Amino acid sequence: MMDGTIGIIGGTGPAGRGVAARLAKAGYDVVIGSRDAGRAAEVVGAMAAPSEGSIRGLSNDDAALADVVIVATPWDSAVATVKALRDQLAGKIVISMVNALVREGRELVPIYPSRGSMAGQLATVLPASRLVGAFHHLPAAQMEDLASGLDADVVVFGDDAPSREVVAALINEMPGLRSVVAGTMSLAGAVEAFTAVCVSINIRHKAHSYVKLEGLGN
Amino acid sequence: MMDGTIGIIGGTGPAGRGVAARLAKAGYDVVIGSRDAGRAAEVVGAMAAPSEGSIRGLSNDDAALADVVIVATPWDSAVATVKALRDQLAGKIVISMVNALVREGRELVPIYPSRGSMAGQLATVLPASRLVGAFHHLPAAQMEDLASGLDADVVVFGDDAPSREVVAALINEMPGLRSVVAGTMSLAGAVEAFTAVCVSINIRHKAHSYVKLEGLGN
Repeated sequence: MMDGTIGIIGGTGPAGRGVAARLAKAGYDVVIGSRDAGRAAEVVGAMAAPSEGSIRGLSNDDAALADVVIVATPWDSAVATVKALRDQLAGKIVISMVNALVREGRELVPIYPSRGSMAGQLATVLPASRLVGAFHHLPAAQMEDLASGLDADVVVFGDDAPSREVVAALINEMPGLRSVVAGTMSLAGAVEAFTAVCVSINIRHKAHSYVKLEGLGN
Repeated sequence: MMDGTIGIIGGTGPAGRGVAARLAKAGYDVVIGSRDAGRAAEVVGAMAAPSEGSIRGLSNDDAALADVVIVATPWDSAVATVKALRDQLAGKIVISMVNALVREGRELVPIYPSRGSMAGQLATVLPASRLVGAFHHLPAAQMEDLASGLDADVVVFGDDAPSREVVAALINEMPGLRSVVAGTMSLAGAVEAFTAVCVSINIRHKAHSYVKLEGLGN
């Protein structure tokens, strides 16, 4: 098990809560951060109490003090939010789970940030952090419900190989998840954009499906 | 079963051959096309003889005369190739399985065509055809080997809903494949680019994995 605490900036939404629930189940102490610490405390109070680890609701500033920090804000506020926290995030592994998606009719469609991906946008404003991408394709409700029977693969990417491996190992400790390292930040836009395909499939088919890579043999 | 024959423009590569093998197994008469008809005949001669349906190796012009036409050329020749065949392709369902990928070190990475996707590029030069995207994430060798145990999902997209459904039904007749309709051409770039992630994962993990969407319930 990794030493240290895990913070989730902008973690009060369904995606952040789902990751928090499974990190706590793996035994970690998690801080869900929000612009409004009172709101974070309220959201955490409404979550199922973790049987292992812990989940606290605090400010984004407090979440950024953790040893590993996950960014789970909406895409259009991610850059400004992490930029304000860049000193706290320096030297740390920062995991982007941000997807730039917009609704068009009954679909979610990807938009392409100027750096090619949201992870690329965040890496640009966090030059002293070690940026890794993960947690993009997961169905949020199934993530938060530990009894949902989820058995999903999490594609991991980043330019710093040791950080990528730390994140991959962390994911493998989370129940219902298996990490699959894809490669470098060159793949970030493709991983993020595929989230739009996953969500659109679930809207169209009224399902909560998730990606499994068959034939990896582990 | 759908009436008619199926042509595969630029079908002599591993991806085209794999689709041809499984279409024939479903009972279809398939024409693999090439710029060089002699080369196509040679490639088909080296393939396992189909137990159902048929596979012939002819010119791209001949392949374009089929009732449904699949485009399987390399990405950088796809537009010029189909543009020259646009009269033969008018009024037909044209299936793009083209991905714009380039090798960078040990990864394949996506490049983004000016229309957002290769399917979008093809749709632009084939205004009288009904363009559908499919067959992007499949491991080619496993596709051609009918005994490989493949059980993969094929994401289908396109703006014409009836054509999308024809292609989805066709895929469901092919052994080892299940179609999953994602939505419109707005998702084309995301589906195509994710192929780079799939291939990079397989290079890195020395595997032949493929995408399965768990939890779709059919």
